[in-house]
Amino acid sequence: MITVYGYSPSGNCHKLRMLLSHLGREYHWVETDSAHGATRKPEYLAKNPNGKVPMIETDDGRIMTESNAILCWLADGTRYFAGDAWQRAQTLAWMFFEQYSHEPYVAVARFICGWTPLDSPRRADLPKLRERGDAALAVMEKHLGANAWFSSLGYGIADIALFAYTHCAADGGFELAKYPHVVAWLDRVRAQPGFVAMPPYAAENTTLIAQSRHV
Amino acid sequence: MITVYGYSPSGNCHKLRMLLSHLGREYHWVETDSAHGATRKPEYLAKNPNGKVPMIETDDGRIMTESNAILCWLADGTRYFAGDAWQRAQTLAWMFFEQYSHEPYVAVARFICGWTPLDSPRRADLPKLRERGDAALAVMEKHLGANAWFSSLGYGIADIALFAYTHCAADGGFELAKYPHVVAWLDRVRAQPGFVAMPPYAAENTTLIAQSRHV
Repeated sequence: MITVYGYSPSGNCHKLRMLLSHLGREYHWVETDSAHGATRKPEYLAKNPNGKVPMIETDDGRIMTESNAILCWLADGTRYFAGDAWQRAQTLAWMFFEQYSHEPYVAVARFICGWTPLDSPRRADLPKLRERGDAALAVMEKHLGANAWFSSLGYGIADIALFAYTHCAADGGFELAKYPHVVAWLDRVRAQPGFVAMPPYAAENTTLIAQSRHV
Repeated sequence: MITVYGYSPSGNCHKLRMLLSHLGREYHWVETDSAHGATRKPEYLAKNPNGKVPMIETDDGRIMTESNAILCWLADGTRYFAGDAWQRAQTLAWMFFEQYSHEPYVAVARFICGWTPLDSPRRADLPKLRERGDAALAVMEKHLGANAWFSSLGYGIADIALFAYTHCAADGGFELAKYPHVVAWLDRVRAQPGFVAMPPYAAENTTLIAQSRHV
């Protein structure tokens, strides 16, 4: 059984919870609060020098990091990472898009709204983050106007990777109603067998997000 | 024969030039100056709505984007993307590290130094970019203290992905001498059969980089 070191409100960590649930695989979850320094402790850095969640550990002590790489390993040989080399590379292309063009804006805007004080200087970054996040959502909207899924051949790990922070983009101040194909796709993801929702945030984060709507 | 739309001084584009040379594959290169708007033209956006280089096009008109996904497709079944599912996922983990924790700092610092005016307000970002880029280089240094390569089983696409912007990190103000294992690895990459160096930059970029050393 694998051990997942993850912070529950992290979309990157939630990706693993979703896929493991779809696959019906048992796992051990170690809550690792990256927002309060848990990934900067020496014992964590000894396993992952990059100091990020999620990380998985196998029973024989092997480590893997990077949420999307872990998805590829877990989904290998299943319908969630299907197709020939070209089709699997197209799935990977959306996963690299997610990490480079989507997460640094959509996820970071949400983090600033819910996980930094209302007077944080980082809040000055929000307009730029929202502009770039909107550009990523527009690319998704265009694709979903002609395709049901991001993974080749059907729902799979590219959809899971992109769902992770898109479903909670409103918490970062994004208006998902502007992207009707994205909204419909989010609902299709939620209807997949074994789908599991992200756990509720802590009260302090929910409060900060609500207060961010007025600043 | 595939067509590569690439901007020669871009590390992301150079990755493809390197792998295609290692593989001895012929290709058609269409120089696409992303620094001067070539990826924002309607005919380019029609093929790649995300408006970035590199992009490849097959003879039958199929498109693939995202440098690291293209590397995976080109290297499929070769020694440059070797190993079982776990080993290939570890290679992918370094490629996601490259796009998330390395390129946004190491590459962007170089871009600001060589591709923006000396009075650009973006230059205020350089100290933060260098701090985070140094953190990525330190993670690489630690790995290379115990391993010859980033790809599993030997030199491969994770090495190519990380070489692309590490070899020219000095142009962004990074001191590679602080990372002796990285310097030795760069030399091992350069010694690989079929290695091809990045073409020289245009004079204006070389001049801006030289001037950036004093500001």
